[in-house]
Amino acid sequence: MPQPPEPAADHRAAGPADLVVEGCTALVHDAAGEVAFAEDAGIVVRAGAIAAVTSAAEAARVPAAERIDARGQIAMPGLVNCHTHAPMVFLRGFAEDVPVEEWFNDWIWPVESNLTDRDVELGALLACAEMIRGGVTTFADHYFAMDRVADAVAATGLRAVLGLAYFSSQGPAGRDASLEFALRRAGGADGRITTCLAPHAPYTVTDADLRATARLAREHGLLVHLHAAENREQTETSLARHGRTPVEVLQRCGLLDTEVLIAHGTGLTDDDVALLGRAPAAGVATAPRGYLKFGWDPTPVRALHAAGVPVGLATDGAASNNTLDVWESMALTALVQKSAERDASWATARQVLHHATTQSARVVGLGDRVGSLAPGRRADLILVDLTGPHTQPVHDLAATLVHSARAGDVRTTVVDGRVLMRDRRLLTVDVAEVAAELAPRLAALTERGHGRRIQRYDT
Amino acid sequence: MPQPPEPAADHRAAGPADLVVEGCTALVHDAAGEVAFAEDAGIVVRAGAIAAVTSAAEAARVPAAERIDARGQIAMPGLVNCHTHAPMVFLRGFAEDVPVEEWFNDWIWPVESNLTDRDVELGALLACAEMIRGGVTTFADHYFAMDRVADAVAATGLRAVLGLAYFSSQGPAGRDASLEFALRRAGGADGRITTCLAPHAPYTVTDADLRATARLAREHGLLVHLHAAENREQTETSLARHGRTPVEVLQRCGLLDTEVLIAHGTGLTDDDVALLGRAPAAGVATAPRGYLKFGWDPTPVRALHAAGVPVGLATDGAASNNTLDVWESMALTALVQKSAERDASWATARQVLHHATTQSARVVGLGDRVGSLAPGRRADLILVDLTGPHTQPVHDLAATLVHSARAGDVRTTVVDGRVLMRDRRLLTVDVAEVAAELAPRLAALTERGHGRRIQRYDT
Repeated sequence: MPQPPEPAADHRAAGPADLVVEGCTALVHDAAGEVAFAEDAGIVVRAGAIAAVTSAAEAARVPAAERIDARGQIAMPGLVNCHTHAPMVFLRGFAEDVPVEEWFNDWIWPVESNLTDRDVELGALLACAEMIRGGVTTFADHYFAMDRVADAVAATGLRAVLGLAYFSSQGPAGRDASLEFALRRAGGADGRITTCLAPHAPYTVTDADLRATARLAREHGLLVHLHAAENREQTETSLARHGRTPVEVLQRCGLLDTEVLIAHGTGLTDDDVALLGRAPAAGVATAPRGYLKFGWDPTPVRALHAAGVPVGLATDGAASNNTLDVWESMALTALVQKSAERDASWATARQVLHHATTQSARVVGLGDRVGSLAPGRRADLILVDLTGPHTQPVHDLAATLVHSARAGDVRTTVVDGRVLMRDRRLLTVDVAEVAAELAPRLAALTERGHGRRIQRYDT
Repeated sequence: MPQPPEPAADHRAAGPADLVVEGCTALVHDAAGEVAFAEDAGIVVRAGAIAAVTSAAEAARVPAAERIDARGQIAMPGLVNCHTHAPMVFLRGFAEDVPVEEWFNDWIWPVESNLTDRDVELGALLACAEMIRGGVTTFADHYFAMDRVADAVAATGLRAVLGLAYFSSQGPAGRDASLEFALRRAGGADGRITTCLAPHAPYTVTDADLRATARLAREHGLLVHLHAAENREQTETSLARHGRTPVEVLQRCGLLDTEVLIAHGTGLTDDDVALLGRAPAAGVATAPRGYLKFGWDPTPVRALHAAGVPVGLATDGAASNNTLDVWESMALTALVQKSAERDASWATARQVLHHATTQSARVVGLGDRVGSLAPGRRADLILVDLTGPHTQPVHDLAATLVHSARAGDVRTTVVDGRVLMRDRRLLTVDVAEVAAELAPRLAALTERGHGRRIQRYDT
């Protein structure tokens, strides 16, 4: 076991800390950036940032406004949900056991033409509750009425990377609105909100709009978050229609020269992976549950890893994925990657923890702010209880975390130094109240008799 | 929604019931045996059996020694873990990220030569705690020192189908001991223990021993529980060495004429499936997590379904599977089957609930006793809380149960009418005490320097 890193020089001299976590085992990253565990550790938080990861004894001597006794628990960086449509929890279990074309054209896109701002806000609040309970501290969201999602983020205390989705079928207004939102809400919620541009996908946004998006991203220093090569069929259709893969389309449009977050990528070719490997700031979000459900290939994580492309964990929206459980995405990434490669020695527990921490932080453009427990990082951390019968005994802490622990084992969730859940009790959102307001709205929300849809899926 | 079935005629006349569960939605099976839900239901329990599944109002009028207010909860048959090695939780996370040959030969089988009876009993107690917390009410176990497992079953209140495993390398003593155990402990723990014969597998037990096992099974009316066609390589090796698949070996040895529980079957051929379809009482247990982890094919559930062979859900042992979470096996069965068949419309939530209930009960030989909430069945039931943010809202109860709910949402577990967990509190086993006694034993248990192993894996 490595020693905990040296405390930052000033952490004892600065008066009472805001929060001290004592007596945990801390998931840290060693000098090479690999996952390691520091036993009997303490974490000192000041002004929303980690001031020190030190020994439990040292931490015990630091006066603090709030203390958490975390003996027997693991402290780790909060999970990052690198691609979701948080409000869509209102459609959890609504469109089941159907292929993707039917899912979009007959269920989801007709229903989304009914959306009201209040539906989106209630969905976002419920989603935030679910994510806080599952140890997610940051989520990258790509949806409509994003001001309401931003409000939910502000209210619940989470961190988020928000982008207002658009299709070219909206005309120039869609792209303009995405930029206007990104500029207006950047830095909101005391800096917990960062923003991005959010074209839907190469099959719903024209090359001209993608080119304009790339220009705007460079001009304003914004991340671009979009779906691309979601499945093999999309890649094949793109090749047949345009002679280029979706990722080649992104490259031609200049998007690979920007900071770009590609959701899914299960249809990536070897050449696409090579292109992404040469891009300065491309990352991929993988949401394996939905790929199994739709019968898609997995994201080629091994090839991306070899090409140096960070791969972050995600859940997609709950309308397809049924949960926003990034803990499950972590386990499924290990399982599906071993299965796909027919190699039990690949996708080790430590590697998957690396995806869940520093790689996920990089993918959403927050690689220098979150994703590890280290001095100077924002204090986004979770405490995980491993005393349950399903996580005992512990032979290998990484394996216990990835393969035995569950989202429900997260006892405490902290974002920017603020405790959002303590001992499983949510402190910033009332689930019963949100669910009660949402329930009577569902009939109008799920009405499909009107014949409208927001878009047509035709890869 | 179907109406709840009529209450049994005598349930009001028999004096106070032992237990009444009120106000739940009950997962029942309709006249065709399909999964259905009865809203606002009540369940009356007498003498360890279900006396009635009726309306909440009717149940409220039945006097009872114990009542559970289950409003907002789902009552469903307790889950059945159709194939596990429960004590192996002591090796959870011990042998990770290695292929199956190495897993057996370099890790598990050397270590199992160190086993003491007390290790097995502590492992079994911890496993029972995990299963009770995850809503499992019956498990089919296949291991060593099974008297200690039977003791743990008696102590914790679970139901189990127990078989003492043997290899032909033990000589006649192994088979004799398996039979002696089966006859001696049958009907134990107030009838909650049933027993079986447990040859390890066709690659570790000779044809002569398998033939003798089939004879003994017929003579004593015993189920036979064994591993077969665990993976494709085993089938190929068997064909190369013997000119027959593992299932053809079972058939020639007479085992397909007995009640037989085949674990895994991921290497089944189409002809094997046809053979099983013609067998009078063959069932297959599928434990999908481990197959992903080892890079094996999935069990061919669709073909088995078409051939009329029941498929039950299982976890295998935690040394390979990391958990005894049958809830996860249920979700993974849906996901992996959709993925393997590349058909999102296959393995619907309702079908998978059917596997989890009546099919699993049949596979372990308890098809007439457990697996559904119906008058006359043993009162093995669980109450599941769907008020958490990750299970709200509910559009489709089957989908919510399979794809959104988690083992940790089980609030109450009842076996034979006795409450083993109430509101997440275990009533029959002290996890901290068991874990504390187990921890200092692990160094001796996992010592591999002695060069012994209980068997060699060579398919």
